[in-house]
Amino acid sequence: MNKPAIILLSGGLDSTTCAAIAKKNDYDLHGLTINYGQKHNYEIKAAKCVAQNFRFNSHAIININLASFGGSSLVSEELEVPKNRNLEHEKEIPSTYVPARNTVFLSIALAKAETISAFDIFIGVNAVDYSGYPDCRPEFILQFEKMMNVATKDAVQGNQKYKIHTPLIKLTKADIIRKGHQLGVDYKITSSCYTPNQYGQPCGQCDACKLRIKGFSDAGMIDPLTYK
Amino acid sequence: MNKPAIILLSGGLDSTTCAAIAKKNDYDLHGLTINYGQKHNYEIKAAKCVAQNFRFNSHAIININLASFGGSSLVSEELEVPKNRNLEHEKEIPSTYVPARNTVFLSIALAKAETISAFDIFIGVNAVDYSGYPDCRPEFILQFEKMMNVATKDAVQGNQKYKIHTPLIKLTKADIIRKGHQLGVDYKITSSCYTPNQYGQPCGQCDACKLRIKGFSDAGMIDPLTYK
Repeated sequence: MNKPAIILLSGGLDSTTCAAIAKKNDYDLHGLTINYGQKHNYEIKAAKCVAQNFRFNSHAIININLASFGGSSLVSEELEVPKNRNLEHEKEIPSTYVPARNTVFLSIALAKAETISAFDIFIGVNAVDYSGYPDCRPEFILQFEKMMNVATKDAVQGNQKYKIHTPLIKLTKADIIRKGHQLGVDYKITSSCYTPNQYGQPCGQCDACKLRIKGFSDAGMIDPLTYK
Repeated sequence: MNKPAIILLSGGLDSTTCAAIAKKNDYDLHGLTINYGQKHNYEIKAAKCVAQNFRFNSHAIININLASFGGSSLVSEELEVPKNRNLEHEKEIPSTYVPARNTVFLSIALAKAETISAFDIFIGVNAVDYSGYPDCRPEFILQFEKMMNVATKDAVQGNQKYKIHTPLIKLTKADIIRKGHQLGVDYKITSSCYTPNQYGQPCGQCDACKLRIKGFSDAGMIDPLTYK
């Protein structure tokens, strides 16, 4: 019998590749998608599509209204998602950073994991071609893992340890795309854009689009999405 | 100007006393109550009452449906909350344990904290007269605090550190009640029971009631609530 794993699935390029890696490693896939009030909630449709395409064993969509706290251009109507930034020269953490987002996501993943006796959690964080978010870095993942292992009944009573798998953390975007291609990922069903139109068509100008476009270009491959 | 603090407020005896301690220490009080699908959601009414009584600066109620994962008699309709357990001889973590609950609560508190630039979080966990939940222990709080301090933009860029305040962690229930009494807490507006009736009247038989009743008795004080 395969081991169960929780897959944090946004429906983007990274989390989809991460799911493909977990599948390749023979885990049973239990998807977890968080509807946190992101303006680009088209990605939830993409996540459902990916879960179906990969034949996930289960897929939970959990609502939590982080938008009510504000503090990020990804959730606040009064803040605009920045466009056409020169990512190579930017050192500031951008306004798209959502306070404690991965902390909240991994916590919910832990809750789900304990209820199905899973000890493996996959998250597609990347600390190379990324926007500088603090909760995508190895230091954060390491501390979260330590915390998990004193947090639950299973961790305290059992002999198994929780592991956060971050197979993409040290890869470039081009490497991620090559890896996914080898594993047969259809990137047409993924959605990366922070401001897609109602049909899911990406803007091509936000950080997420720019990183994706550069990734495909560096990998010498064609992005199957059509940009606005 | 007072420093802002996030107060995790369930509306129970412990979190209310914890709020009184934060108030005594001159923090601005920003309450956070989580509606996680608990059957005893009467406690949310109590939390609102406490926030009003203490003149909180703000009070957010966040919904997250942990009940959809199941795995606890506090949220699952098919599991019954245990009654009349002999707490002095019980060593098992009871079915009322909710997987990763305090991990999820503290994560949401961190998200709220970062959006209002608060670095102090109060949580009324107790590791003496408690049900043995792993996420009420000092080891867990310590690891969570370490994780927080590498998780956010404020922690990485700023000079301030997050602190989780657990003023009740080493107190007996009687000590907590005495402390609250000194601070003028009106325990009539709090709700501890896991299975209150529709008017909020406590059962007197669940672990939470038994710990509360023994606490008042050990403190030599009268519990202002009327039990069923």
